[in-house]
Amino acid sequence: DTLLNTFSAYGGCVDQRVQGAAICGKFGAKGVIVRSMTNSIDDFPHTGTMTYNDLPRAQYIPAAAISSKAANALSTDLKKNPNLKFFFKQSCQTLPDAPSYNVVGEITGTETPENIFVVGGHLDSWDLGEGAHDDGTGIVQSLEVAYLFKKNKIRPKNTIRIVFFMNEENGTRGAKKYAALAKTNNENHIGGIESDAGGHTPRGFSIQANTANTKLLQSWKKLLGPYGLHDLDAGGSGADIAPLQGENVTLVGYRPDSQRYFDYHHTSRDTFDKVNKRELALGSASIASLVYLMDKYLYNNTLLKP
Amino acid sequence: DTLLNTFSAYGGCVDQRVQGAAICGKFGAKGVIVRSMTNSIDDFPHTGTMTYNDLPRAQYIPAAAISSKAANALSTDLKKNPNLKFFFKQSCQTLPDAPSYNVVGEITGTETPENIFVVGGHLDSWDLGEGAHDDGTGIVQSLEVAYLFKKNKIRPKNTIRIVFFMNEENGTRGAKKYAALAKTNNENHIGGIESDAGGHTPRGFSIQANTANTKLLQSWKKLLGPYGLHDLDAGGSGADIAPLQGENVTLVGYRPDSQRYFDYHHTSRDTFDKVNKRELALGSASIASLVYLMDKYLYNNTLLKP
Repeated sequence: DTLLNTFSAYGGCVDQRVQGAAICGKFGAKGVIVRSMTNSIDDFPHTGTMTYNDLPRAQYIPAAAISSKAANALSTDLKKNPNLKFFFKQSCQTLPDAPSYNVVGEITGTETPENIFVVGGHLDSWDLGEGAHDDGTGIVQSLEVAYLFKKNKIRPKNTIRIVFFMNEENGTRGAKKYAALAKTNNENHIGGIESDAGGHTPRGFSIQANTANTKLLQSWKKLLGPYGLHDLDAGGSGADIAPLQGENVTLVGYRPDSQRYFDYHHTSRDTFDKVNKRELALGSASIASLVYLMDKYLYNNTLLKP
Repeated sequence: DTLLNTFSAYGGCVDQRVQGAAICGKFGAKGVIVRSMTNSIDDFPHTGTMTYNDLPRAQYIPAAAISSKAANALSTDLKKNPNLKFFFKQSCQTLPDAPSYNVVGEITGTETPENIFVVGGHLDSWDLGEGAHDDGTGIVQSLEVAYLFKKNKIRPKNTIRIVFFMNEENGTRGAKKYAALAKTNNENHIGGIESDAGGHTPRGFSIQANTANTKLLQSWKKLLGPYGLHDLDAGGSGADIAPLQGENVTLVGYRPDSQRYFDYHHTSRDTFDKVNKRELALGSASIASLVYLMDKYLYNNTLLKP
């Protein structure tokens, strides 16, 4: 609870869930129980991806996330009785792969349609809940960017491509395929923005770009500040657009307020009723505004080679 | 929906509810129906204070707030049929006054205990709901300021006085009485901070002070910014501390994010479950930090006459 940004806190401890089974399995553990990665003390398991790395199949051990309340109870009981026995039974299974698809639509640029600017989120969600904030809100906001351009009769100079990425949660295969196809087709991606941090009240953007473009975007602080968009630090963008990275590709991650995100993240509570319509719409407008500025000023119509 | 700050939107249209009956009554209206002051389209009446001004008792007319959904339905029906008849029946009543009290506690200053800095919210709430965000959160945050000073063993130079004001919603008589007693007792109030804008994620403060002190507080932007406290504009402070106003009194209103506030304000939905523990605690810490800075730097221990 000591980091203001909950994504930083999550990033700092999620290795326990991701790597727990692989590392404990190597040491001969029978199973691994992980305390949910959340700020809230609740009765909902917060789950997510895990790996066995290169552990031999025979050393695979069961792994489970338990709620923060359950973890507290277990910890208390273990302190009382170090010989405590803990049983757990699982019924989950990994089904074979099935085909799925990215969903793509675009507004063709009026001046340099070869320059493509991607706006996206991911269409899949983790098993539990509806994935309302992860990443239903990102999908809606991406679509709304196109809607807001249309509604306001703004014709972008570059092509604005809306991409609903598939399989972010389980390998980012949609993102990898998209980037591979972009390369195969010799497409010229000049930038992208991803919304995959929840649909809460807007705070700013994280910029993954070369120094000049990072500074250019940060120079818009005075335009964005009055809309509550103060955070414009350099940093990561998002798992789905990161494969498009390149010296002259300006990638941006939308950063809404993070305080409530891990109350819901990867739990059965991440449902539609947790999304506030107004906060969601303000996010769409924030993203659309940045896309507008980037389309207009980023490359002054010069076609940059990929 | 076109103003980012929902309090500004509220301030711009609330005269319809406050003055509706007085003005329509003067023109011989039979009653007045007001669309709820809210950003959300819901089925909950959002109510609040109203007045008949100096209208003679005989011209008093009934007044009611209806939900935004009901207002939309009524508007649609009226357009279809301008001769539509609208009936309403009310069972509310105004009970006689009963005694109630402000609740006051303080940490005595170590250097200039005569200098008093007030931290407060209001203890009463509008009839509907529990008043969780209006102003249960302000009360808890005010108390937490004292708790955080104690917990961190910070002994303020000036006296920090925590005040739970009574009757904010229906005449601010607690605030008026407090200010009157301060004058009678020749108390020296150097400043105050009020939390009465909900318990949502922190955004900053509104400063009601002389130019020098306003600038001093705004110069702390670099200290507060990393905690998401970017809004440090000059403006109002709060209804309960405003009566303490004076040339050398520095008053501050805590300003959390306003986007969800009017979803709940003065409705039966303003209940405890709408408060996020972490957002509430971040607000307490934000307020305590500003009180710490103001106590330390505002007057450099010089006793200012009231």
